[in-house]
Amino acid sequence: MEQQLETLWKEVRELSLGTSVEVERLNSPPSSLRFLRDFVSANKPCIISDATLHWPAISLWSDDKYLRGALSGSSVSVHLTPDGRADALVPHPEDSSLCFASAHVCRMPFSEALDLISSDKGKGKGKGNGKGNGVVAYCQEQNDCFRNEYSVLAGDCEAHIPWATEALGCLPEAVNLWIGNSLSHTSFHKDHYENLYVVVSGLKHFLLLPPTDVHRLYIHHYPAASYSYSPDTQELILELEKPPRYVPWCSVDPYPSPDSVHHEISKFPLYFNGPKPFECTLRPGEILYLPSMWFHHVSQSPDGRGRTIAVNYWYDMQFDIKYAYFKFLQSIHHPLYGPTLSQSEDKDPLSVLSCSERTDRSNTASGAYEAKEKDSKEA
Amino acid sequence: MEQQLETLWKEVRELSLGTSVEVERLNSPPSSLRFLRDFVSANKPCIISDATLHWPAISLWSDDKYLRGALSGSSVSVHLTPDGRADALVPHPEDSSLCFASAHVCRMPFSEALDLISSDKGKGKGKGNGKGNGVVAYCQEQNDCFRNEYSVLAGDCEAHIPWATEALGCLPEAVNLWIGNSLSHTSFHKDHYENLYVVVSGLKHFLLLPPTDVHRLYIHHYPAASYSYSPDTQELILELEKPPRYVPWCSVDPYPSPDSVHHEISKFPLYFNGPKPFECTLRPGEILYLPSMWFHHVSQSPDGRGRTIAVNYWYDMQFDIKYAYFKFLQSIHHPLYGPTLSQSEDKDPLSVLSCSERTDRSNTASGAYEAKEKDSKEA
Repeated sequence: MEQQLETLWKEVRELSLGTSVEVERLNSPPSSLRFLRDFVSANKPCIISDATLHWPAISLWSDDKYLRGALSGSSVSVHLTPDGRADALVPHPEDSSLCFASAHVCRMPFSEALDLISSDKGKGKGKGNGKGNGVVAYCQEQNDCFRNEYSVLAGDCEAHIPWATEALGCLPEAVNLWIGNSLSHTSFHKDHYENLYVVVSGLKHFLLLPPTDVHRLYIHHYPAASYSYSPDTQELILELEKPPRYVPWCSVDPYPSPDSVHHEISKFPLYFNGPKPFECTLRPGEILYLPSMWFHHVSQSPDGRGRTIAVNYWYDMQFDIKYAYFKFLQSIHHPLYGPTLSQSEDKDPLSVLSCSERTDRSNTASGAYEAKEKDSKEA
Repeated sequence: MEQQLETLWKEVRELSLGTSVEVERLNSPPSSLRFLRDFVSANKPCIISDATLHWPAISLWSDDKYLRGALSGSSVSVHLTPDGRADALVPHPEDSSLCFASAHVCRMPFSEALDLISSDKGKGKGKGNGKGNGVVAYCQEQNDCFRNEYSVLAGDCEAHIPWATEALGCLPEAVNLWIGNSLSHTSFHKDHYENLYVVVSGLKHFLLLPPTDVHRLYIHHYPAASYSYSPDTQELILELEKPPRYVPWCSVDPYPSPDSVHHEISKFPLYFNGPKPFECTLRPGEILYLPSMWFHHVSQSPDGRGRTIAVNYWYDMQFDIKYAYFKFLQSIHHPLYGPTLSQSEDKDPLSVLSCSERTDRSNTASGAYEAKEKDSKEA
């Protein structure tokens, strides 16, 4: 089976995706037919240059005064972690075993959130917000927040991506705003959405792996934990959920620290010794089409004001033969895959059903069916 | 692995194809975007009613005089077999082991071919054509014959299917004409093309299985043989090719004779005990979209003049992630699959490379790459 999986990883690149690490670039938005045929149907990413330079957000949002003024009456959701790693595997302080850590989410006036994000290296200075040092803030609520918490900014971006909407036959299911700094990373994961990702300010760096490479990410179950803020110590404390809940998550950190790199390579040889992930940096004015079910790792470089701002459009995906093939592939055991099999994802659906909505839809068949039912109702 | 494959067969139906044996029907031609999104991208068949009733062929070709007149100066390719089974597995007369039999192909004036096809039960009466009794004739040269041998009829059909051409981004690679009678069958096989199939007169009956079900067809290697006509005995004689050549072909006959049915079921349990194939009958005026890589078995019912006439449009397919998934699936061994593994298809590519062009492109990775290269040149 090892040989067959390696052939799959190689063939999908030779046939369709390309054998370099580069993502195909288009100079201008494609027709809806071309986008659908060459990218969505093929489940292949692309970057569209010069796609959003005409959006008011591109110039307006580089100015903090504009954002603070427009959102002066708004309180927004902010995700707080000690180190910028939310929805990520971190060692539990008690026994150093890995757990799946969720951020501490709180609401605060937008101006305070922006201060926290933009301050030196993103460390909060405790400017009257009741948070101590050692806190990394990230506005990244993935619940259609751009059309809710940030609705006053609606006129600055297009409500949807016209050629994508036409191709996919529906309006976006969710539009999300992301404001973070260089410390925030998003660990490897996949979403059950077609994703159109737009950078407004700063840079976003993506590592991408196709769904065919699922075994190379070593998806195992980790106990769920979340940060909570202790007013006494003014610190974020990580606590395991009770009763325990287990979240399937990718084990690979693509950027291990120099002193752990050998250890990581020996733990995850399928990732480190296999084909390199596709790699791209997204600039203001560009759109990344990030196909459904693709694994992605995201990091960012801030603009001159210390923050990276992005907007992404999630469109419902089709649960078609590609998805059925993926589920089958994921059910196959690779001998180097380690003790926890991917198959177990489906063996204990209840452990997953209580995850956040995003995790839910990413990891359960029932999520897929729900989404599909919704699709057909909206069609 | 048995369980995982069964889950795949079930899930692709539950998620996308439907769990009945019916093929989805559209009342009128879809937009190119809908066709691409809901059917091509999803690799899902559909039937479009009332799609070609306006074609001159629908009325003109019901009249033998019109066809004989138009083609009076033409000689056409005719495939001759003793029983209507060409490109099919038949017992070799010497030892009764199965071989892959190709028809005897000869050229004759169109009028003679039509006599052979339309005569009682399709049996040739030897009307001056030099062929004896016991011959079933089928005009089915799959080499773009409609635009070559039958080019005088070009004005009677559309040169391409406009919404399919727009969706697929290219003109048809081949357009083929099929004139046969009730005795001709096409055994289960797949083509590396997107296929738009049009019935002009009579009925065509299809059994369809998705590419996910590849193990259920028991593709094994069979020695190639072909019929040749013996003027002495006025019979078709089946002879094994020398040197031997082996062709991978589906082993399942979906309509076994009553006295062999139990034997066939015990030989091919994955087919007979698994989900039933999709089933449809195509009438004049209708188009079947037969997606690339779908296995299909075709039989026919004649019109009042004893023949069935169809035209099909082959469009180049995309060799994308779906194709990579299929190749992977096909490389997996099912314990009930029998002694000859599907993997062996790729182990001896030379045995396949010398097949006919259609078989070539259907069964070799090199065929896939060639076709892909061609695609990109034409784009």
